[in-house]
Amino acid sequence: MWEEKTVKRETIFKGRIVQLNVDTVLLPDGRESTREIVKHKEAVAVVALDEKGNIYMVRQYRKPVEKVLLEIPAGILNDEDEEPLEAAKRELREETGLIAASWEKLASFYTAPGFTDEKIHLFLATRLSQGTQRLDEDEFVEVEVISLARAYEMVLKGEIKDAKSIIGIQWARLQIG
Amino acid sequence: MWEEKTVKRETIFKGRIVQLNVDTVLLPDGRESTREIVKHKEAVAVVALDEKGNIYMVRQYRKPVEKVLLEIPAGILNDEDEEPLEAAKRELREETGLIAASWEKLASFYTAPGFTDEKIHLFLATRLSQGTQRLDEDEFVEVEVISLARAYEMVLKGEIKDAKSIIGIQWARLQIG
Repeated sequence: MWEEKTVKRETIFKGRIVQLNVDTVLLPDGRESTREIVKHKEAVAVVALDEKGNIYMVRQYRKPVEKVLLEIPAGILNDEDEEPLEAAKRELREETGLIAASWEKLASFYTAPGFTDEKIHLFLATRLSQGTQRLDEDEFVEVEVISLARAYEMVLKGEIKDAKSIIGIQWARLQIG
Repeated sequence: MWEEKTVKRETIFKGRIVQLNVDTVLLPDGRESTREIVKHKEAVAVVALDEKGNIYMVRQYRKPVEKVLLEIPAGILNDEDEEPLEAAKRELREETGLIAASWEKLASFYTAPGFTDEKIHLFLATRLSQGTQRLDEDEFVEVEVISLARAYEMVLKGEIKDAKSIIGIQWARLQIG
C-alpha cells in the first residue's frame, strides 16, 4: 500500500560515480509526483583498531564540500562481483597499507535515503600489521593514527564531520569502550 | 596545496531536491580529473526524547532505496533564510505533531562527502507536548514511539538502517544512556 510505483523513469546522467534518475511515481493517494534519485554503487568503511586502542583515520580533500575531512578508510565496491568484505580489505590496504587478521561486520546503512540509494557496509578490523599504501591515481590521502578516546572527543567537538566515521567511532565507543 | 581548483563546471541538472554538477578539477599533482557533485540543501534531524526515555521515530517509504525505513524526524531547510533550529522545530511539528520546550544542538555532519555536499544539523528535543501532525502533500509518514533502549537494539540488529538515525540514537545512548 505504501510503495511508490514508478510510472516513468528518465535517466538524466550516467557518470563514473553517480547516475541520476527522475522517476515519476504513483503516490498512495493516487496522485503522481516526481522523485530525483541518485544511484550510487555500494560502499564499504572500516573501523581499524590496533591493540593500543588507536583508530586509523585518513585525511583527504573532499571536493563536494570543499574541505579537508578526517574520515575512516572507505571506498566503493569495484564491481558487482566484489564482496563487501573483500572491498573492505582492499580499501584498508590501499588507503593505509594495513592488513588485518581479524574482521567483523558491524552494520550496513543508507547514507541519505531521501535522495540516494548509497549503502555502506561497515567493518571492524583488528590484529593489524603494516603493509604498503597504494592509492587510486586521483586519490591524495594522509593517514592519521589517534586514540579512540580522542576520536570520540573530536566527534563531540564537531571536528569529525563525516557521517560514516561518526557511526564507526560511536559504534566502537559503545561496544568496545 | 590539497585543494582541487575547479577549472570547468558543467551543470547537468537542476531539480527540486538536487542539482548535479560535473566539475573538472586540477589535482595536487597538476593533472586534471572530473568530480561528479550532487548539490543538496542543508537538512535537519531531531532526536525527540520524552521523559520516559522514549524516542519518536517516523516510518516512511523511501523511493531511492525502495524500502519502508524507520528514521528520526528530519527534513530540508525551507530556504536559505531558515535557521536550522527553526527548520528542526517545523519538521518535528509537521512529521509528528510534537512541540518541544527544550532544544539542544548535538552535531552537524556531511552524509556522503565523496559525492554530495548534503549537511545535516542534528538536534535533541526534550520536554515534549503533543500538537497536530501536518505533512507535506507528497509525504506519507507514520509515527512510532519506542524506548531508546529498544531503538539502540534495533541499530545493533540492523533494523534501523538510516545513517542520521543511527548517529542520533548512538549519540543519545552515549550521552544520556
